[in-house]
Amino acid sequence: MQTVQTINELKHIIGVNKEKTIGFIPTMGYLHEGHQALLNKAREENDFIVASVFVNPAQFGPNEDLDRYPRNIEHDTKLATEAGVDVLFVPTPEEMYPFESGITIQVGELSTKLCGESRPGHFDGVLKVITKLFHLVQPTKAYFGQKDAQQLAIIETFVNAYNFPVQIVRVPTVRETDGLAKSSRNVFLSEQERAQAVHLFKALQLATETWKKSKNVDEAIAKGKAHIVENTSGKIDYFAVLTYPTLQPVSEQADQLLFATAVFFEKARLIDNILVETKEV
Amino acid sequence: MQTVQTINELKHIIGVNKEKTIGFIPTMGYLHEGHQALLNKAREENDFIVASVFVNPAQFGPNEDLDRYPRNIEHDTKLATEAGVDVLFVPTPEEMYPFESGITIQVGELSTKLCGESRPGHFDGVLKVITKLFHLVQPTKAYFGQKDAQQLAIIETFVNAYNFPVQIVRVPTVRETDGLAKSSRNVFLSEQERAQAVHLFKALQLATETWKKSKNVDEAIAKGKAHIVENTSGKIDYFAVLTYPTLQPVSEQADQLLFATAVFFEKARLIDNILVETKEV
Repeated sequence: MQTVQTINELKHIIGVNKEKTIGFIPTMGYLHEGHQALLNKAREENDFIVASVFVNPAQFGPNEDLDRYPRNIEHDTKLATEAGVDVLFVPTPEEMYPFESGITIQVGELSTKLCGESRPGHFDGVLKVITKLFHLVQPTKAYFGQKDAQQLAIIETFVNAYNFPVQIVRVPTVRETDGLAKSSRNVFLSEQERAQAVHLFKALQLATETWKKSKNVDEAIAKGKAHIVENTSGKIDYFAVLTYPTLQPVSEQADQLLFATAVFFEKARLIDNILVETKEV
Repeated sequence: MQTVQTINELKHIIGVNKEKTIGFIPTMGYLHEGHQALLNKAREENDFIVASVFVNPAQFGPNEDLDRYPRNIEHDTKLATEAGVDVLFVPTPEEMYPFESGITIQVGELSTKLCGESRPGHFDGVLKVITKLFHLVQPTKAYFGQKDAQQLAIIETFVNAYNFPVQIVRVPTVRETDGLAKSSRNVFLSEQERAQAVHLFKALQLATETWKKSKNVDEAIAKGKAHIVENTSGKIDYFAVLTYPTLQPVSEQADQLLFATAVFFEKARLIDNILVETKEV
């Protein structure tokens, strides 16, 4: 595996491997089994694998955890090597953003709900870096975890609306044995919080089961919220049910419903979700 | 030459010609010698030439000339064929914009001056269609006329900031024998206005000569404006001098200065400009 820090070097390598199918996995590093699932899937489906590790300042708000976001490039390098990555792109913020053009990408309505509501500008920053990375890597397929469901919905919509020549591949959430979704931010949980954190997933399961029986969204949300309040010390940011990937209020026509929640613990905000196929119910 | 109306067909052709260098010329049609210069330059420099004819609704304001923008696809087809274009992409608005994602590209400060001031949202709409077309055509090089200097500056900045894998080629303005810049909108001029219209260029020449002598921007602008007022029935939208391509107030450091003007006639708003290399003066 080659580790590359500059855009020029990356461009050169992409140019040389132009005829291959390129699988791309953009990450913020501190790789865990969730990322591993993305890397493995990409490795199965492509000739050449590029992964990036970049804690993107543009997607962090002024009061968010940019500085203390966990980093461990040695571990990431080892994991990426083992997964068969060909190129690991690890740019500095200055390499990615050498100047401010004033030209922005604004997500608009899709970013006004769920995580977007408490993280204004977050998804604009995600699309900024994704646009740059897609243009640099020119991947055949790019891999994203279903855990960041809103991010995935926004990227799919963006790629579709702006005709990016890339196929977005959704990869299911990887969980700890007790059900907690794998996340780089889990390291910030206290021992007690870690034990409680499984109840995000349990609350989502309860809500989806409730909805499958009654088709009553309000009841499902109420039960899910109550479960989190009763079983954790966390503060609920949201607990919502929306159509997917359109993120609209639940309607009869939707093929997929997203049950999603975000909960603030002392030093980490965790998210999780379950996608329900309405036609299978 | 193949004329293509659907995105799927275009994608197929681009896929088949992936190994070739692709030259791309996006246009709004009603092709004239200015476009011909772009096509010829592209033909010299690439294996495969794609041109598009699309009057892009996203770049017209509600009170602008979208409906009466001149169109003549038979003429365009003939001219493109003669210039050696391989594929002419002529999509409908529905083909280009099948749904509204809510995700927008906003030009910001670069669009607050010159044409942007009287055409709010215009350059946002230009970048919207250019992003889609670049993703569809995946050109090696794309060709733009220097006549739309602000558009060119914004596209160059955008491509640079967002790492589009394309080289932007600037092509000098083509003029009528009397000096009037070629433009699809010239057909809207009355006979009298057509005779007056050459004075945009003459005023710009006067301004650049004045500046070269005195280095006094205000004096140069005043002389240019006075020339237009005295010699035409048009209403000046702007007459300005800015750094290029940064579009900032004139400073000592700038390598290039843009002298630009826009004038409203009865049924057409004309623009023209001259770029001055400051180091050569």
